[in-house]
Parts: sequence; structure tokens; C-alpha cells
Amino acid sequence: MPYMMISTLIRLETGPTYVGDAKSDPVLMNHLEATLTKEPGQIFEVYRTPLLPREVLNRLEKKGWKVIAVTGVGETCIWTLHRV
Amino acid sequence: MPYMMISTLIRLETGPTYVGDAKSDPVLMNHLEATLTKEPGQIFEVYRTPLLPREVLNRLEKKGWKVIAVTGVGETCIWTLHRV
Amino acid sequence: MPYMMISTLIRLETGPTYVGDAKSDPVLMNHLEATLTKEPGQIFEVYRTPLLPREVLNRLEKKGWKVIAVTGVGETCIWTLHRV
Amino acid sequence: MPYMMISTLIRLETGPTYVGDAKSDPVLMNHLEATLTKEPGQIFEVYRTPLLPREVLNRLEKKGWKVIAVTGVGETCIWTLHRV
Amino acid sequence: MPYMMISTLIRLETGPTYVGDAKSDPVLMNHLEATLTKEPGQIFEVYRTPLLPREVLNRLEKKGWKVIAVTGVGETCIWTLHRV
Repeated sequence: MPYMMISTLIRLETGPTYVGDAKSDPVLMNHLEATLTKEPGQIFEVYRTPLLPREVLNRLEKKGWKVIAVTGVGETCIWTLHRV
Repeated sequence: MPYMMISTLIRLETGPTYVGDAKSDPVLMNHLEATLTKEPGQIFEVYRTPLLPREVLNRLEKKGWKVIAVTGVGETCIWTLHRV
Repeated sequence: MPYMMISTLIRLETGPTYVGDAKSDPVLMNHLEATLTKEPGQIFEVYRTPLLPREVLNRLEKKGWKVIAVTGVGETCIWTLHRV
Repeated sequence: MPYMMISTLIRLETGPTYVGDAKSDPVLMNHLEATLTKEPGQIFEVYRTPLLPREVLNRLEKKGWKVIAVTGVGETCIWTLHRV
Repeated sequence: MPYMMISTLIRLETGPTYVGDAKSDPVLMNHLEATLTKEPGQIFEVYRTPLLPREVLNRLEKKGWKVIAVTGVGETCIWTLHRV
């Protein structure tokens, strides 16, 4: 499980933050206070947490995850993380 | 408090710069001359400073923060910083 | 073959993922469960896999590939990988 | 003065390049052949040079500046540089 | 000549790739199979090659160039390279 992405719709100063997909580690997802949900009009499930991106990154760092890249796609901001 | 984001609406050569959310460290926010404000149409608060992004980054570097990634989302430019 | 790009249309939590072009290594493409396909309206072929980007990155890491940059172009998210 | 940004409207192969704001170091700005100007409709001043981004980066490298991140915001490409 | 940018209009799996401006090194441009051309509606010249971005990056790596950043601006994907 070395790579992980989290994303948020712009703005940075509010949640929710998307932290996983249907196959993500449920223990880690629970640690991020995320619940598996299917959003309107989508055919796949996502893990979503009310935490801010900043809070998510800080919790993940304590578990050994490191941000390796950040990008914007459309109106979404995406952090790619890696754990050795 | 290892991760932090700052952002600005394009253009780079003028402020304001957004430097925090409602839960950000008030001492650091004060050092960046930022005040907590609720913008029109928003339901959350942000810390905003009249400083330019360049000035904010230079002040943060003296406090041990390092830029690890920069990205654009829509018309917003976002710097992600980290402090060991 | 030191550089490689993979890409996905936003959202991160579902496939397909694009992992190669007509000249990509077929053995590696097969390992990623990708098939060569020509999409409607295109004049070139691409390798496409039903795996999620996260799954693709994790498989590639085991083969020695490392993410060096991530970016968004339009509604597409692109990971650039490198192998020493 | 450890951080600096330069930017250009897409395309990469032509100038001008924006290299500073009203508070930037005038000696460095002069070295980049930039002049302080106020663009139509703007209330702030910018340093603008006829050099290409590639030429600006190469001159800055000789002065000890290093590119640490590149991003696109809207139609603008932004290089963030750092000097130890 | 330490910095260089290459760019492509999205999609990654087909050329052409833009690899230089009017002042780029002609020997390097020739090695990338690029020709100097003026595109319709432009007042400046660019070096353009039929190679894919992946092929360009792989040729450049053999010449000592390293990708340091990738970004999207509008519908264009840009790789910034550096050579020590």
C-alpha cells in the first residue's frame, strides 16, 4: 500500500476531504474519520472525511505517509502521498 | 503542525494571501499579519494577510517551513509547506 | 525505457487508467492488465486498464518505477514516473 | 530573499516573462532586463522582461537560484525558485 | 544551457512535442528530430518534433537532462528539465 491520494474541492480551509476508494484500507480510513459513501450520480464509492486536508495530512504523517506531489485538476486539489 | 498551505488568486505580484483556516495556530497567523475573516458567501473562516505570497514564504522560511509543492487549481495558486 | 506516464480522467477513485502508447512495452502493459485500444474519434492507440491509478502505481513501484511528478491538464490527472 | 516566482502566459517559446513585484530587488530585476510597469486594468506594478522563461531561468541559476516547483494556474505558467 | 522545457497538447500518447524556441541549441534540436516552424497565427518560431513526449524524455535523459517538474497549463502539459 505504498501510494495514496487525497483530494478536496477548492477551498483548502474547509472539508470534506476525499481519502480513499472502495479498496482502501478500512483501518486507515477509520483513523481518518472517513466513511464509505456513494455520491449522487456516481457509480463508484469513495471514502470521505469531514476533516480539512491539512488535518488529514498531519494525521497521515504520523503514520509514515509523506507528500510527494500536489496538483490541481479542474477545481480539485490532489495530494499524492507515499509510504516507504 | 507539520503541513501548511498558503494560496493566492492569480496574480502573484499582489496580495492578499490566504494562510490558514479556523484551526490554524493563532501565533503563527499573527506573525504573518493575518486576520480571521469570513468571506461573502462562505460558511467557513479563513486567515487572510495583505502580504504577497513571496513575502509570506520568506517569513515562513525563517520559522522553519519549506515549500514542498506548488499547484494551480482553477485560478488559485497553492503552495504546500512542511516543517520537520 | 526510463520514463513513463499514466493518466486518468478525474475522479481518482475509479478506473480506467491510461498507461501507455502504441510503442509501450507489451510485457509491462500486460502486467498492468492493459489492452491496446483506439478510442472513438482518435487516430492513435492507447493502453487502457480497468485498474485504479492507485493500483497501477503500487504495481509499478514493485517493478522499480517511482513517481517523480504529478500534474493536472484540463480534466486529466497525469503521473510521470521514472525508473533508474 | 530566498523565494522568487517567475511567470509567463502560455506559450513557453516567447516572452515577456514576469519576474517580480514592486518590492523585488532592483539590482536583480535589472540583471534580468526587467522594467517596473503597471499593466492596463491593474492597480499594482510588476517587473516584466522581454526574455524567454528559459533565458530567465538560466540567468537566475548563475546567481544561485534553483527551480523547486512549476505550476499552471489558468493560462499562466509559474516557476517557484529558491536560493539558499 | 541548464534549463529546458518540452510541452505537448494533451494527449500523452501521440505527438507532436514542442521542444524548443528560436534560440535553442540546433544540434540538440536535430537530435530530437525537431524542425523550426512558425505556427498559424503565431509571431514566433518553435521547434516541433513528431516524437511522443515519452520518447523525447528518454532521448534527453541519455544526454544528461533530468525532469525536475511537470505541470499543466490550460490544455498543455509542460515538462521542465535541468542538466547539471
